[in-house]
Amino acid sequence: MPIAKGYAATDASAPLKPFTFERREPNEDDVVIDIKFAGICHSDIHTVRNEWKNAKYPIVPGHEIAGIVTAVGSKVTQFKVGDRVGVGCFVDSCVGCAARDVDNEQYMPGLVQTYNDVEADGKTPTQGGYSDSIVVKEGYVLSIPDNLPLDASAPLLCAGITLYSPLRHWNAGPGKKVAIVGMGGLGHMGVKLGAAMGADITVLSQSLSKKEDGLKLGAKEYYATSDAETFTKLAGTFDLIICTVSAEIDWNAYLGLLKVNGSMVVVGAPENAIPVHAFSLIPGRKSLSGSMIGSIKETQEMLDFCGKHDIVCEIEKINIQQVNEAYERVLKSDVRYRFVIDTASLAA
Amino acid sequence: MPIAKGYAATDASAPLKPFTFERREPNEDDVVIDIKFAGICHSDIHTVRNEWKNAKYPIVPGHEIAGIVTAVGSKVTQFKVGDRVGVGCFVDSCVGCAARDVDNEQYMPGLVQTYNDVEADGKTPTQGGYSDSIVVKEGYVLSIPDNLPLDASAPLLCAGITLYSPLRHWNAGPGKKVAIVGMGGLGHMGVKLGAAMGADITVLSQSLSKKEDGLKLGAKEYYATSDAETFTKLAGTFDLIICTVSAEIDWNAYLGLLKVNGSMVVVGAPENAIPVHAFSLIPGRKSLSGSMIGSIKETQEMLDFCGKHDIVCEIEKINIQQVNEAYERVLKSDVRYRFVIDTASLAA
Repeated sequence: MPIAKGYAATDASAPLKPFTFERREPNEDDVVIDIKFAGICHSDIHTVRNEWKNAKYPIVPGHEIAGIVTAVGSKVTQFKVGDRVGVGCFVDSCVGCAARDVDNEQYMPGLVQTYNDVEADGKTPTQGGYSDSIVVKEGYVLSIPDNLPLDASAPLLCAGITLYSPLRHWNAGPGKKVAIVGMGGLGHMGVKLGAAMGADITVLSQSLSKKEDGLKLGAKEYYATSDAETFTKLAGTFDLIICTVSAEIDWNAYLGLLKVNGSMVVVGAPENAIPVHAFSLIPGRKSLSGSMIGSIKETQEMLDFCGKHDIVCEIEKINIQQVNEAYERVLKSDVRYRFVIDTASLAA
Repeated sequence: MPIAKGYAATDASAPLKPFTFERREPNEDDVVIDIKFAGICHSDIHTVRNEWKNAKYPIVPGHEIAGIVTAVGSKVTQFKVGDRVGVGCFVDSCVGCAARDVDNEQYMPGLVQTYNDVEADGKTPTQGGYSDSIVVKEGYVLSIPDNLPLDASAPLLCAGITLYSPLRHWNAGPGKKVAIVGMGGLGHMGVKLGAAMGADITVLSQSLSKKEDGLKLGAKEYYATSDAETFTKLAGTFDLIICTVSAEIDWNAYLGLLKVNGSMVVVGAPENAIPVHAFSLIPGRKSLSGSMIGSIKETQEMLDFCGKHDIVCEIEKINIQQVNEAYERVLKSDVRYRFVIDTASLAA
């Protein structure tokens, strides 16, 4: 069995620390990947701290993986040694179903998450990208366009697709007014992707502290939500609002910013229930919806779109030894805009 | 000015009583209608009791109007004396806009409601259908198909379109599984209309007391929501759920009945905010939406559809003198399924 070196959480309160473990023996349809970079997603923190009450320790987190193929099984046709590849939030899907649902697989009960889950074999724990290698079925490996740097591409695998999918599903494009709530790791990708799709992007952020960045990345307008006048001025403005924050906000005030037939889509999950007044939805045929990452097919489409438009994440690169400190900074929103671990540091 | 006889509420607590008032002088684009029947909608009760805090007394309620044309203005082209016609929830729209939005007019700020509102002239109070005549602009008068009885057609103008519009908007039809929550005035129309569209209809009602009716009207299945097993058995079943009840229900349990990409649409407004958990929406790209009546264009389409499929409401006909008693019975859900006032009784 291939041995991997990584960083793991062993319980809900301990910091991540070095951890050596076995990857599964590659099958004929598997791709072996030398992990070069792994993004830090807020979900990693929720999971290792058992805030979602489903932690299975030890956990090697990381589902924003970029690397290079080092071996392929005999039946692999799409990848070869040396290819630049990515792995996102899941490594199998539709397990137990008659056929793979290529359009909706991220919502299928048979999804196998990249870490803190169990492989399709029903026994091997999955472990993520804060490590030096991974073995993944060909069908769940993504191709990273040649013109994109690997490090800043890693977060596309979660942050990128999390915004790309709802922007596409709700038809962001020319003539559409789209608001992105929150200017963090997810939000800044919404600005870049939405602007590249041709939509008219407005950022709604707590303060104006990142306004310059927002406009530079493609937003047309940038408003502070701490200013009550924002909600008066922008009433009835947007076709689509994508909410990337998990903080408690005045949901009905945001719904008031939608046009007739508009949708507000939640991609960051607040802890408490969202109190929606029926009269925020009924007079305007408005919707409150949810969206979660994307299918493998759509993730590849997103990567190709990013290749075409030269889009990557804005990142701050760190060594694995800084991961615990980075977690604290993520919790304080003190990162512009995504931490990416350089896994070469695992050898240190 | 034409004189009308009707029943009105003069304050929030008094019973409705006889009321004589002036209708506006007909213009060249107006249709004068001899009102034959008026349905009783729950909104009538909310309004006259000032539960929506917008009552402008005296109020003659009624926005489910069916009658016969008795006069037309010189520029009226679509109607002639003797025509069977209806009037619904509004008598003007897009007032103050450059052009009428024929697809979304029910959501426009310039909507003029059939009663408890002010005409487009900015001064004349509108008064509704619990009366013997009404003067309405041609563009807001609907044609009732010849094969439909006038009395049972009256409630199509509100109850009918309230269900027809979301069924159409969310693509109810062959291969679609649709749940109708509540088997009352609105719900029973959802069953009839949805079944006629070819959708597979399930009724979710508190009890099984109206099961026989539900199946007779076109539902394939009928479940009691008081039985917790219903929610286990039907998990992930529906493409569309239309909620016609305004009672407090376990919203997240209902969202659990949706398929991936499913929508739950609220047409009855509960008093308190709906507490939606983000995790009821995100893993399945689900939506909670609202919908309100329909445009004039869509209302005519609905009436033509009803004509083609021989669909009317199930009604209990009453005299105007019984209206206050009928209100009490509506509040107890003691009607199968809609009260319709025979306005001939106004002459008594």
